[in-house]
Amino acid sequence: MNTSASLGSLGVTGLGVMGRNLARNFARHGYPVAVHNRTVNRTHALIEEFGHEGTFVPAKTAEEFVAALERPRRLVIMVQAGAATDAVIDEFAPLLEPGDMIIDGGNAHFSDTRRREAALRERGLHFVGAGISGGEEGALNGPSIMVGGSAESYGVLGPMFEAISAKIDGEPCATHIGTDGAGHFVKMVHNGIEYADMQLIAEAYDLLRQVAGYTPAEIADIFRTWNEGRLGSYLIEITAEVLAHTDADTGGPFVDVVVDAAGQKGTGRWTVQTALDLASPVTAIAQATFARAASGQAELRAAYRGLPGGTTPPLSRSEATRFTGQVEHALYASKVIAYDQGWKMIQDAAAEYGWKIDLGAVARIWRGGCIIRASFLDRIRAAYAADPELVSLVGEKTFAAEITDAQVPWREIVASAARRGIPVPAFSTALAYYDTLRADRLPAALLQGQRDFFGAHTYRRTDRPGTFHTHWSHPDRPETSG
Amino acid sequence: MNTSASLGSLGVTGLGVMGRNLARNFARHGYPVAVHNRTVNRTHALIEEFGHEGTFVPAKTAEEFVAALERPRRLVIMVQAGAATDAVIDEFAPLLEPGDMIIDGGNAHFSDTRRREAALRERGLHFVGAGISGGEEGALNGPSIMVGGSAESYGVLGPMFEAISAKIDGEPCATHIGTDGAGHFVKMVHNGIEYADMQLIAEAYDLLRQVAGYTPAEIADIFRTWNEGRLGSYLIEITAEVLAHTDADTGGPFVDVVVDAAGQKGTGRWTVQTALDLASPVTAIAQATFARAASGQAELRAAYRGLPGGTTPPLSRSEATRFTGQVEHALYASKVIAYDQGWKMIQDAAAEYGWKIDLGAVARIWRGGCIIRASFLDRIRAAYAADPELVSLVGEKTFAAEITDAQVPWREIVASAARRGIPVPAFSTALAYYDTLRADRLPAALLQGQRDFFGAHTYRRTDRPGTFHTHWSHPDRPETSG
Repeated sequence: MNTSASLGSLGVTGLGVMGRNLARNFARHGYPVAVHNRTVNRTHALIEEFGHEGTFVPAKTAEEFVAALERPRRLVIMVQAGAATDAVIDEFAPLLEPGDMIIDGGNAHFSDTRRREAALRERGLHFVGAGISGGEEGALNGPSIMVGGSAESYGVLGPMFEAISAKIDGEPCATHIGTDGAGHFVKMVHNGIEYADMQLIAEAYDLLRQVAGYTPAEIADIFRTWNEGRLGSYLIEITAEVLAHTDADTGGPFVDVVVDAAGQKGTGRWTVQTALDLASPVTAIAQATFARAASGQAELRAAYRGLPGGTTPPLSRSEATRFTGQVEHALYASKVIAYDQGWKMIQDAAAEYGWKIDLGAVARIWRGGCIIRASFLDRIRAAYAADPELVSLVGEKTFAAEITDAQVPWREIVASAARRGIPVPAFSTALAYYDTLRADRLPAALLQGQRDFFGAHTYRRTDRPGTFHTHWSHPDRPETSG
Repeated sequence: MNTSASLGSLGVTGLGVMGRNLARNFARHGYPVAVHNRTVNRTHALIEEFGHEGTFVPAKTAEEFVAALERPRRLVIMVQAGAATDAVIDEFAPLLEPGDMIIDGGNAHFSDTRRREAALRERGLHFVGAGISGGEEGALNGPSIMVGGSAESYGVLGPMFEAISAKIDGEPCATHIGTDGAGHFVKMVHNGIEYADMQLIAEAYDLLRQVAGYTPAEIADIFRTWNEGRLGSYLIEITAEVLAHTDADTGGPFVDVVVDAAGQKGTGRWTVQTALDLASPVTAIAQATFARAASGQAELRAAYRGLPGGTTPPLSRSEATRFTGQVEHALYASKVIAYDQGWKMIQDAAAEYGWKIDLGAVARIWRGGCIIRASFLDRIRAAYAADPELVSLVGEKTFAAEITDAQVPWREIVASAARRGIPVPAFSTALAYYDTLRADRLPAALLQGQRDFFGAHTYRRTDRPGTFHTHWSHPDRPETSG
C-alpha cells in the first residue's frame, strides 16, 4: 500500500464514485492526494482497493485532513450540490488560512458559486468552482474541466487540472474559463447543449423510423455512417450502439422495451431559466427540456392519444435513401444553430457578469472528456481562433456555406414532419430561430403596437430617436415623445 | 369635496396610477376608501380631482391611515413588486391587529406572496395576494381579479372585489383562486398566455403579409372578420386597429415605422421559469418569450441577416384567399394548444402547492377585464363546468372536433412557413406539442438508452416494473434491476 506520511498536493473530501475516481486520477498522475470522507470506511476502501495506483494520505477528521495538505492548501469538495456543499465549506473554511483554495468539483448552480466565492474572498480564501464533465468514467480517465475562480488560483491549480484532463491533439481539455462562477456556468451550458443535441438525434431517429420505415438496426447503420462524417461525435456513436442493441428477453430492439418517458437532472432546466434572465434565446435547449417534460406527462399523453395526425404514406426504398440524406442536412444545420445559441448565451453571460471568456477555448476543452465531444468542436475552436470577436458561427464562411447547402433539405424535413405528424420541436425551433434572425423585418413591430395600445408601453420609431406613444382612442392626435 | 371623518371600508396605500384608479373604482361603488401615499401631495391631488366620485378618507401618516380603517382592517398595497412591497409590509404590519388583512394588488412573484403570507399568518394577519389584470383602464372601470390568501379573508373581501370587477353576463370577473400565492400565480400564467396569444397573432400577420402579399390595411380587415368568429377577442380587435392605423408622418402603415424589437415586462419569463420547475411544457409561451428576446438581439440579427431563406413565389389572389382560411385554422388550433398548456400548468401548480383551483372559474373571470378576454374563454369555462376533472381541452368534444378539422390547414401552414422561410416558432411548437402528446411512442425511449449508456442513469421497461441498467461495455451480460 502506497500511503505515506507525506503531505498531499491536494485533498479530496467526499469519496463517492466521482470523488474517488477524481482522487485516483490525481494519484495516477503522480500527485500525492489526501483523502477524507465523512464516514471513514469509504476512505479505507479507497486505499485498500486503489492504494497501489499512487500516493494517498488518509485523514479521519477535518483537522487531520487540513493538516495533511501542502500550503497553500488545495481542498477539493466532491459532495452533493446545495446544502451539503455549504455545510462542508462551513466545516473547513475556519481551518484554512489566507491563500488556501477550496475547489468545488460538484454540479453547483453558478449563482451559488458566485455567492460562495464572494463570501470566501472576504476571508482571504480562493473559492474555485470547477465544472467537471464526463461522469464517473471521465473523472477517472480524463474529464473536461471548466475552471472558475481567480486567475491567481488557476496559476497553481491549472497544471494539476490540465494533467488529469482528457487530451486531444496533445492539448488538455481544461482551462480557466473566467472568474467566480464562470466555470460552473459554462458547465451548465454544456449540459444544456447536450439536451439539445440528444433531442435532435432523437428526432432524426424518429423520422428515419416512422417516415423512412427503417428498423432500429438499419438506423444504427445510418448513424455509424454519419459518425464517419461531419456529425461524428460521441453521442452519434453511442446512439448507434443503443439502436443496434437487441433486448435479450424479447429478442426485439432494445429501444422498443424502454419506457419512453425521459428523465432530467436539472441542468437543462437551469440553462433555460438562466437564459430567460439573460434574454438569450436558447430555443433548442428549451424545446429539448420541454420535450422531456412532455414525455413524462402521462395524463396529458392519455388525453391526446388517438387524436388525428398527418398522412404517412410509406416511402419507397429509393425515397427513403433520399430522405435519409435530407435528415442528415437537417440534423447538422439544427445542430449548428443549437450550438450557436449556446455560445451566444455564454457571450451574453460574460457581458452580464464581467467574465472575459475565450470562446474558442470553450470549444477546445469540449473536444474530449465530455458528453458532447466531437470533431465538430474543433471547427468551432478554429472559427473563434480566426476571429475572436465572432458573434455567431454563421458568420464563419464554412459554417455559412453548410447552412446554405442545407436550406432545401432542412426546410423539406421540417415541412414533411409537420405534414406527417412527427413531432420535431427541436428541428423546427432551430429553423424558426434561423428565419427569425435573418429576417429584415419581424412582426415584433406589431407586438410593440399592441403593447402601446393596451398598456401604453410606448414604442421606438425606425426613422427617428425617442420613445413614442399613440393616443389610440384618438389616433389622429400627435404622438407623445417620451 | 366628498371626504369625511368616517372610516374607510378599506384603504389604499400607493397612489400611482394603478392605486389611484383602484381607489376610485372602490369609491364609485360606494365603499368609503382611506387613501395614503408616501408623499402626501398625491393624496391631495386624488381628492382634489376625483373627490366627487365617492367618499375618500385622506391619511398623512401610516398611523393615521390605519386608524382610518374599519375593523378588521383591509389595507391594499399598490406599490412596486419586490423590495418596495416588503418595506410597506414592514411599515404597516406592526400597526395592525390579528384578523386584519393586507392585500397586495401589485405584480408580485407568487413565491414572494407565499413567503409573505406564511410570515404574516404567524402574526395572525391575513395576507392576500390579488392579481389585478387590465392595466390602468381595468383598475378604474373593471379589472379581472385573481385572489389568493385564506378562504376566510375572501369571505370579507370577495364581495368588494366582485363589486369593482368587470362583469360578463352578469357574473363578476373576480374569484378566490386558492390559498396563499394562488392568485398571483394564476395572474402570472395569464400574462404568459397573453405572450403566446400575441406571438401567434404576430405570426399570422407575418404570413398574411409576406406569403399572401396583403397590405396591413387588408390584414386589418381580415382580423376584423376573424373578430366576428371563434377568434373574437380583445387582442384580435386591437390588432385590427393597430394594423389599420396610418402613420401621420410618413403616410404609410403605422406598423412599418415601429422598431421591430419587442420588450417584455418579465411575467412571460417568470411563467416559463416556473413551468420548468413544475415540468409543465408551456412551449408556446416559451417560444413567444424567446421570440421577443431574439427580436432584441441586434448583433445576432446583424450576423444572420442576408443568409438564404426559402423560396417565396407570390400567391395569386385566389390562392391568397384560400391561404387566409388556412391561417385562421392554424391560428385557432395553435391558440387552443397554447391555452391548454396554460391550464395544465395551473393544474400542475395546484398539485405542487396544494391549491384547490376551480379551472372553469379561471376561464370565467378572464372573459372580461383582462388582456386575453374573449368569448373563447366562455367555452373553456363550459368545458370545465361539464367535466371539472378534464385534463386537457382536447378531451372536450367540440374542441377535439375543431382540432380535427384544423389538421390539414394547420399542417399546411407550418409546412409552408418552413419552406418559405417565414419564422413561426409558436405555430410550429404548438403543432409539435400536439404531435408529441398524441404519439403512441416517443423517441424519449432512445434518450433513456443514451442516458443509461453514458451516465448509468437506468431506465424502466415497458414489460415489467423496476429500474434497469445495461452493462454497455458488455451488453450481453444481464441487466441489473435497481
